[in-house]
Amino acid sequence: MFMGASTDQGMDIATKSRDIIRSLIGDDIKDLNPAERDIVERIVHSTADPEYAKLVSISRDFVEVSLKSLKKHEDILTDINMVKAGITQYDGEVYSYIKDENVKEYAKDKGITRAAAAMEYAAKEGFEGIIVIGNAPTSLFKSIELVESGKLNARSIVGVPVGFVKAADSKEALSKSNIPHVITRGPKGGTPIAVACVNSLISTLKNENYYQR
Amino acid sequence: MFMGASTDQGMDIATKSRDIIRSLIGDDIKDLNPAERDIVERIVHSTADPEYAKLVSISRDFVEVSLKSLKKHEDILTDINMVKAGITQYDGEVYSYIKDENVKEYAKDKGITRAAAAMEYAAKEGFEGIIVIGNAPTSLFKSIELVESGKLNARSIVGVPVGFVKAADSKEALSKSNIPHVITRGPKGGTPIAVACVNSLISTLKNENYYQR
Repeated sequence: MFMGASTDQGMDIATKSRDIIRSLIGDDIKDLNPAERDIVERIVHSTADPEYAKLVSISRDFVEVSLKSLKKHEDILTDINMVKAGITQYDGEVYSYIKDENVKEYAKDKGITRAAAAMEYAAKEGFEGIIVIGNAPTSLFKSIELVESGKLNARSIVGVPVGFVKAADSKEALSKSNIPHVITRGPKGGTPIAVACVNSLISTLKNENYYQR
Repeated sequence: MFMGASTDQGMDIATKSRDIIRSLIGDDIKDLNPAERDIVERIVHSTADPEYAKLVSISRDFVEVSLKSLKKHEDILTDINMVKAGITQYDGEVYSYIKDENVKEYAKDKGITRAAAAMEYAAKEGFEGIIVIGNAPTSLFKSIELVESGKLNARSIVGVPVGFVKAADSKEALSKSNIPHVITRGPKGGTPIAVACVNSLISTLKNENYYQR
């Protein structure tokens, strides 16, 4: 497997795409380590938007703690099912609680979004692993709050919610925390970015990333 | 439900987002009809990328034939599971065959991508409805070929694959066909764009779209 490709034709497309991406963003990512460069390249691959090379910010501890967690097959917690659906090569479990009936009730009772309520539910369930947020700012704000108060055991957070309202603020808050993280600065982000980031780490773990080819 | 929001806080965010989006892209979409404007607004909402207002192209017959199909609860066929996971409010069935074991074998035998093989499989299964492609150019090329040769019954195609290799060509081919369609010009596109398009149609059908508020 390489960039999701498993056939000769798929591999050919993935290889050409990699070369084009390197020509577009090589300068922006030259100071990153191989695992970090792979994350950024995959994000650009999944969006065809080179601007992401300038928007992505990866904390220095992110790759190391995340790989350690994935190697132990710890859980991954996502904000929505689209993110979960994109993480197809992981040997551990991937959870999303937003459609859970308990979460729906809880959100209504407390007057918070289902995306935020889902994170409180995960904390109660004793989650340990990596949090991946591709959609909802409220989910990211809640995650930061729960992790900082010791109620939620996140090794790292991929925090790339999208939108013109609160998304940039939520990512800024994550970048100022001590939690190992990836963010995209500004309103842009979304599920493909979240998925690309996790799938890159899994490839690195399996020695399949861009820079090892 | 409004833009995926179901709580007061979620509704508040969705409403503010809509106002910001209108201020950013209002001029670009003023000549579209309400259902078409909703499609473009939702795409911009799901990507926080106003450039999409200039890249989206909707054929004049697309909304009418697609709404008719959705109203009859005809099937939706997607290229990958991430697109399927994002279509959460449809009363009909949503299919994706890319992970099907038969499709994997078939792709290897014929030397084509799994994404293309999945479309041939759907044709054999007697699919009738709307095709939604958010990822793979090979899936879109194959869909156009099968529809034009009368082997696949697509009422319309949402063709928004992403990438620097073949994606733009595949969308250009769709735009030149007689198949009712939505495309995004150039390399940009992806699963959130595909999902936004379908969810907008479903909202319009349920009289919940932006312009009816």
